[in-house]
Amino acid sequence: MHELEKTIGYEFKNEGYLRTALTHSSYANEMRSRCPYNERQEFLGDAVLSIIVSDYLFKSSHLAEGDLTKLRASIVCEKSLWGWAKEIHLGDYILLGKGEENSGGRERPSIQADAFEALIAAVYLDSGMERTRQFLMPFVLRSLENEEKPAFKDYKTLLQEIVQKNPEEQLSYELVEERGPDHDKTFVVQVKINSNVIGHGEGKSKKAAEQMAAKEAVELMGE
Amino acid sequence: MHELEKTIGYEFKNEGYLRTALTHSSYANEMRSRCPYNERQEFLGDAVLSIIVSDYLFKSSHLAEGDLTKLRASIVCEKSLWGWAKEIHLGDYILLGKGEENSGGRERPSIQADAFEALIAAVYLDSGMERTRQFLMPFVLRSLENEEKPAFKDYKTLLQEIVQKNPEEQLSYELVEERGPDHDKTFVVQVKINSNVIGHGEGKSKKAAEQMAAKEAVELMGE
Repeated sequence: MHELEKTIGYEFKNEGYLRTALTHSSYANEMRSRCPYNERQEFLGDAVLSIIVSDYLFKSSHLAEGDLTKLRASIVCEKSLWGWAKEIHLGDYILLGKGEENSGGRERPSIQADAFEALIAAVYLDSGMERTRQFLMPFVLRSLENEEKPAFKDYKTLLQEIVQKNPEEQLSYELVEERGPDHDKTFVVQVKINSNVIGHGEGKSKKAAEQMAAKEAVELMGE
Repeated sequence: MHELEKTIGYEFKNEGYLRTALTHSSYANEMRSRCPYNERQEFLGDAVLSIIVSDYLFKSSHLAEGDLTKLRASIVCEKSLWGWAKEIHLGDYILLGKGEENSGGRERPSIQADAFEALIAAVYLDSGMERTRQFLMPFVLRSLENEEKPAFKDYKTLLQEIVQKNPEEQLSYELVEERGPDHDKTFVVQVKINSNVIGHGEGKSKKAAEQMAAKEAVELMGE
């Protein structure tokens, strides 16, 4: 479990939450004295994930409600959660019952996704919303980057549209800083029109930092 | 709008969030210069409501995941939201387009429920999660009291089951204090076995305070 804590860059005060997140019901059912398993935390983690993603999409985009809902559904879903679980090799740590193990449960997307949701709740119960947001956003941002989002009229698009009105003006983004450990990097980006800096942004991925820089620029331009 | 702020016991720092929550798309569509309407805030409010209800149900009950999910669905739904909107006469404040007004839109459950969801987001955007929880929980608790919840094995039931092992012992709950203004009352309850006080609890409704008192008693008894 310490290895997993190192991977996710979070050390639990109460290891019980982590242990519960990693315990599948099939394992608990086989114990003589039943131990807690991850289904209740999964229930909570689902809502924590949803508010963190909703808050981010609401504040960082101009999307209309229908597009926000579609985009949220594409992130808050088994496919993303499974992907995130694989990124941190969560399957290796799940406590499974023998029957489940023998039928290949360890590799099942739903078992891994559910454990990841329970892990979200574990961080939330251990340290509250803000720390959980910090833990989760790098995963969310990577998934958003991979999304097909024709409808995502974001700040970069918006800025592009404003600038295009003057064809001689050229937009460019530059990475000016990378800081922090690998699992929790912060990127700083500036956006320029020709050679003039018109915005700075920070984020947990380059794309997110670019969004924030574009946002600053759009606001500077009074739009 | 000030009347509504008085009713809900919350004064906005940024009145814009409240105004947007009260603006239906039909109204915005009729304006020459389009103004923001409540659909995006409704998207956010839905997730805020869900985490507040999930957090409460998770922490205040022993329910299994399936029952938690059922109970959450019975609270996070149009029927509850419509009921809450009616409690605060939200319909009276909604800005509607003429067509919608003439076809009776002001009384439509979905329009009122959506505005309430957007109002939740308005408080959240204006003051953050904790203040929103404070605003919302009295509504949630009243709805939970009205729920049929055969599956809700709560602390009171649990305590009853423990005490019943000794038939000569009698459980009773007493309200010992009510404080705060009408829209934001706090109740304090004690629970006794025969004449001995075994727990105290506070809550935003009598039933919630009884739950907390029973929780303290159950924990005192080492269960």
